[in-house]
Amino acid sequence: YPPKGKHDKRSMVFADLTNEEYIQVRDYMLKQKDLDLTNDARAKPSQNFIFLIELSLPNKKDALNYLDEKSAKPEREATVVVFHGTSRYIKEYVVGPLPNPTHFRDVTAERYDKTIHINARTVTIGEYGLLFQCIETHVFSKLGKLLKESFDVDKDKAINAFEQMPRGVKSGDRATWISFFRDMSGMYIHPVGFEILVNHESLNESDWKIERLLYNGQYFDTVEGLKTQYDAGNVNKIVYKKTPDYGSLKPKSRPLQVPPQQLYLDGKRFSVENNHVLYLDWSFAFGLSSLTGMRVFDVRFKGERIVYELSVQEAISVYGSVTPGLALTKFLDSSIGVGRFAHELVRGVDCPYDATYITTHRYIDVSAPTRYENSICVFEHNMGQPLRRHFADFFSNSYGGMVNSALVFRTITAIGNYDYMWDFIFYQNGAVEAKVHATGYMSSSYLVDGHDKYGHQVAYKVLGNIHTHFVNFKVDLDVLGVKNVFQTKDMEYVNVSMPWNPEHHAMVPQLVEKQPKTEQEAALRYGTKTPRYLHIASNETNRWGHPRSYRLQVTTFAGDPLPESQPEERSMSWARYKVAITKHKDLEQTSSSLYSQNDIWSPAVDFSKYIMDDESIVNEDLVAWVTTGFLHIPHSEDVPNTVTVGNGGGVILRPHNYFDEDPSIYSPDSVYIQPG
Amino acid sequence: YPPKGKHDKRSMVFADLTNEEYIQVRDYMLKQKDLDLTNDARAKPSQNFIFLIELSLPNKKDALNYLDEKSAKPEREATVVVFHGTSRYIKEYVVGPLPNPTHFRDVTAERYDKTIHINARTVTIGEYGLLFQCIETHVFSKLGKLLKESFDVDKDKAINAFEQMPRGVKSGDRATWISFFRDMSGMYIHPVGFEILVNHESLNESDWKIERLLYNGQYFDTVEGLKTQYDAGNVNKIVYKKTPDYGSLKPKSRPLQVPPQQLYLDGKRFSVENNHVLYLDWSFAFGLSSLTGMRVFDVRFKGERIVYELSVQEAISVYGSVTPGLALTKFLDSSIGVGRFAHELVRGVDCPYDATYITTHRYIDVSAPTRYENSICVFEHNMGQPLRRHFADFFSNSYGGMVNSALVFRTITAIGNYDYMWDFIFYQNGAVEAKVHATGYMSSSYLVDGHDKYGHQVAYKVLGNIHTHFVNFKVDLDVLGVKNVFQTKDMEYVNVSMPWNPEHHAMVPQLVEKQPKTEQEAALRYGTKTPRYLHIASNETNRWGHPRSYRLQVTTFAGDPLPESQPEERSMSWARYKVAITKHKDLEQTSSSLYSQNDIWSPAVDFSKYIMDDESIVNEDLVAWVTTGFLHIPHSEDVPNTVTVGNGGGVILRPHNYFDEDPSIYSPDSVYIQPG
Ligand SMILES: [Ca+2]
Ligand SMILES: [Ca+2]
Ligand SMILES: [Ca+2]
Ligand SMILES: [Ca+2]
Ligand SMILES: [Cu+2]
Ligand SMILES: [Cu+2]
Repeated sequence: YPPKGKHDKRSMVFADLTNEEYIQVRDYMLKQKDLDLTNDARAKPSQNFIFLIELSLPNKKDALNYLDEKSAKPEREATVVVFHGTSRYIKEYVVGPLPNPTHFRDVTAERYDKTIHINARTVTIGEYGLLFQCIETHVFSKLGKLLKESFDVDKDKAINAFEQMPRGVKSGDRATWISFFRDMSGMYIHPVGFEILVNHESLNESDWKIERLLYNGQYFDTVEGLKTQYDAGNVNKIVYKKTPDYGSLKPKSRPLQVPPQQLYLDGKRFSVENNHVLYLDWSFAFGLSSLTGMRVFDVRFKGERIVYELSVQEAISVYGSVTPGLALTKFLDSSIGVGRFAHELVRGVDCPYDATYITTHRYIDVSAPTRYENSICVFEHNMGQPLRRHFADFFSNSYGGMVNSALVFRTITAIGNYDYMWDFIFYQNGAVEAKVHATGYMSSSYLVDGHDKYGHQVAYKVLGNIHTHFVNFKVDLDVLGVKNVFQTKDMEYVNVSMPWNPEHHAMVPQLVEKQPKTEQEAALRYGTKTPRYLHIASNETNRWGHPRSYRLQVTTFAGDPLPESQPEERSMSWARYKVAITKHKDLEQTSSSLYSQNDIWSPAVDFSKYIMDDESIVNEDLVAWVTTGFLHIPHSEDVPNTVTVGNGGGVILRPHNYFDEDPSIYSPDSVYIQPG
Repeated sequence: YPPKGKHDKRSMVFADLTNEEYIQVRDYMLKQKDLDLTNDARAKPSQNFIFLIELSLPNKKDALNYLDEKSAKPEREATVVVFHGTSRYIKEYVVGPLPNPTHFRDVTAERYDKTIHINARTVTIGEYGLLFQCIETHVFSKLGKLLKESFDVDKDKAINAFEQMPRGVKSGDRATWISFFRDMSGMYIHPVGFEILVNHESLNESDWKIERLLYNGQYFDTVEGLKTQYDAGNVNKIVYKKTPDYGSLKPKSRPLQVPPQQLYLDGKRFSVENNHVLYLDWSFAFGLSSLTGMRVFDVRFKGERIVYELSVQEAISVYGSVTPGLALTKFLDSSIGVGRFAHELVRGVDCPYDATYITTHRYIDVSAPTRYENSICVFEHNMGQPLRRHFADFFSNSYGGMVNSALVFRTITAIGNYDYMWDFIFYQNGAVEAKVHATGYMSSSYLVDGHDKYGHQVAYKVLGNIHTHFVNFKVDLDVLGVKNVFQTKDMEYVNVSMPWNPEHHAMVPQLVEKQPKTEQEAALRYGTKTPRYLHIASNETNRWGHPRSYRLQVTTFAGDPLPESQPEERSMSWARYKVAITKHKDLEQTSSSLYSQNDIWSPAVDFSKYIMDDESIVNEDLVAWVTTGFLHIPHSEDVPNTVTVGNGGGVILRPHNYFDEDPSIYSPDSVYIQPG
């Protein structure tokens, strides 16, 4: 069967760079001799390293004009992030036009209105190499006896490092607590009880030093101090004990009878061409940013654009612990790359066997672009329930219904310990859902005194630490064009007299509609009562005179956001708001930034500034920033992996007076039965 | 393949009565000549009508002793509800032992501690027949001209009645506002603008009268008044206009390409025998109460009982309107029967084509038991996502994961306009989920002045009225036996000094654990901040010293519960609480009752009384009563039917320190990949 709609090559305006384009951009930049750049993945911090190459999104206006056939295709450009070790700053360059770049310009000031200090950079593979060398030289080589006796470390057996962030307590700091874990499957739940604080602030790695050590709950200022005290028998020792392989994911029983499988007995009803997807009445363009992850653009239903951009923005976790390794930890994943770790999906587990799998290319912290086979999947799925149905047996007998068969667009990004599953789901009633689930390994710490306030023990000497997950989505709905308003609806009980019996009063639910007029009014904080219905509405009305709108329905189990008293909070200020509405700006492309983790105290992007100017949101291009998440109090069943069931959140974008009737009534999947 | 476990005939202790058993009980009761009963489905209110026959659940202690092989099978008994028209009361009798009853006893006082007045009864088919006659005689036959001119009513064309509840404003009232709807598909969204108040309080139908009429927004005290005014031209008339068939569920496009299908390529991994289900490590017994709906008992995982009873209790809606038809409406569905309307499920729409379908029998408001073909479905479903997975590429390369394949146990009950889909889902990680979704037709009213505060217009002259859905589940977890405690967990930020740097303070998340000691402490009201983690915990600890528990994770979008100032509130006082914990009592079997709708002001069951005695919940048999639901502000896309997407709620029962590790690690569906 041919697809219902037509593929549109204009989607390519949102397409990630191709393998060739990455190389063109890299090579063009390398040719700028005065910049003195290197693409050596083992580059030292003191060098000028091309860290990232990504599509530079076109301005929205230009993209819309092009999509709507009002202007030519915007110039295709790339963003290049360079860690300028020699000049101690980070620069973002825009390079274009592709495929044959002729110009580049520094956009750092334009984008961030400040200089980005070199210490705001992500730790690169190059720096990790040096860090591990530093640890080898300054720690491992000096503590052979302790390491052997405590952890059975020798030539053939290592302990692995897992670092905690942020790297310090104030802007400019770059001192990282590194915790050590047994080199076993799921090392994240095998802490050994040894943590070290490495100061790697200097761009000259020979300046790096070990500032503090924690061994079995005891602190030491120097490696020598620990060694001396240990040898002198003044240290409460950890005596190595082989531990079971409880982090292993190896099946403990044989496959017997395969679970039910979903098959396209009649072929696929969706089609992917370039970065464009067609599915029944839906069409959209997609991309996968190394930093922010999965995103779709120009989402249309029956040809009408509903969403300009729906994208993952950030995933963070705030931990609690008595040990330094997790006590101050706030992981901001887009600083290492939410999309970066979208690896190959496993058929039949990560997505149904027969899904369509898409290969992507990225250029982040590498010498040359990397190919990621089958890193996005697209499939239509029987959601296991009717989308709608009614059985009538009063006055008439009939049945009408329709199975809920929907399109799922998915990536899974394994960012260190955790695997986040990202789903955008397209339903036949015109709704789109963005969902995230967490699985993979939790972070853990070695049991020391005072641990019980920070989680539950989950294995021998292992604490699963309390933490809260927050995830931010950008939802740029364009409801019948870009000029929209924000509307809220809720109920209240009002004491009213009954028209047919005026002396009788009763509390009756009434509709309460409001229209917040400015960004501050529309910033709906967690911990406050927020209206139950949130709408991005057009000024156009449906057949019955009601504003045509899409409603945002958020599902969240988030914990408390970090108090604003904390200097780190500004880097994650989006997490204050369940939903915040801003006036669209091209320069407010993301709610977080690549630099937020490593200069968390003076962030390149502070989302709260987007709404600080309190602009009007009446008849403007509105963007909704949605925060979901869940409080995670680890328990024994998080071993070996956290399960997806119950560990997620999301937002449904639902038509509300947008259509004159439920569009699924036109679906070919509708079923009707009446007595013959 | 043989099923993993063994079927257990002891599940039959929870089995609904068979067709034969219903007849045995009915005939035994009919033989009690002094009761003077009838089973004529057309019985008049003044007669003594056998309204309902249902399984009388055994006392929990007896059932447990039997299940645990400590005692013989409890006597099998039935509950019989008789509407004693001659004595003006309602009685509940327990009849037994089945299959050959020899005794019956009146249990009304024991169960309800009061007399149930005859006017608390559900309107029977018999009474409906008389009501329609009454309307025909007193209204239709007198208003021929008005009905023809306004609604085109004639010999071949009718308007249909839909009644609103409660039937009055105080105990003893039985006066029902009846709204009229066009006789078209989905009549519920075809109001004509004509409503009448019928007083049918008397058991003698010749006393019944029309007390008020509403025509096109104008009120009249008598039919004659309306007729006179209408004929005199003093009434603002409705002029009949053919309206489009917008309520129709007939497909508007032809089936083209079938959606993906799920198939058991390797056979089913679950098995149903009698009322016992086996699925991998799960087993449970099931039943379907005519009144409260779907329920499961003795839910075990790996042979260990986790849930004694998980059951639907009640589904209510509270409406707002300016018209009498919906202004005071509070539908309490278990008073007509939540399970009563579990009709045949449609293969491929309501449940996957290859599901196992179960036939049930009921006896409610009939002369003889009714058979409901394929009214429960059971199927294993690929939930479209991994249950867990981790991709490792730091230090080691490997992948472990497992598809989320789970068992769904479902009924759909079409209670008048709405169809509620009830799902109990059994996951391989030991979690059970109870979910409800609403679909079918919303209730609506004819547009009159002042309508805009009560909803949105959804069709020509039709208002979709604001309302809120509340659904109550009973969750009788028995975590390692019946003696449990209620535990809550949450987080708080605490300002702590860093052990390695004591002058540095930071706000760090800490675990806050509490153990509410009494029923009142454990009654978690909507509108208050409730702890994020709610647990039914054992006194036994897991391997790491933590109480073995199951957590209740509630998803809800409920509106505000009815204010307690309202006299009707006591019939729905369970809806105050997102979760309430009570000490189990056999006499507190349900949170609502058959009589709550029709004597809403003096309910037979007032759930709040269960916790008013504020009993200890420490080391007691605990029951959690969970309320979920959603605020429904109707919109044009509710025409013709409300969709399931986003319109639901539920609760997940999740192991939390119950197992020593995630039990899914033992699933045969586990997959592991490592470089060869
Ligand atoms: Ca602004
Ligand atoms: Ca917009
Ligand atoms: Ca009590
Ligand atoms: Ca219990
Ligand atoms: Cu977590
Ligand atoms: Cu509803």
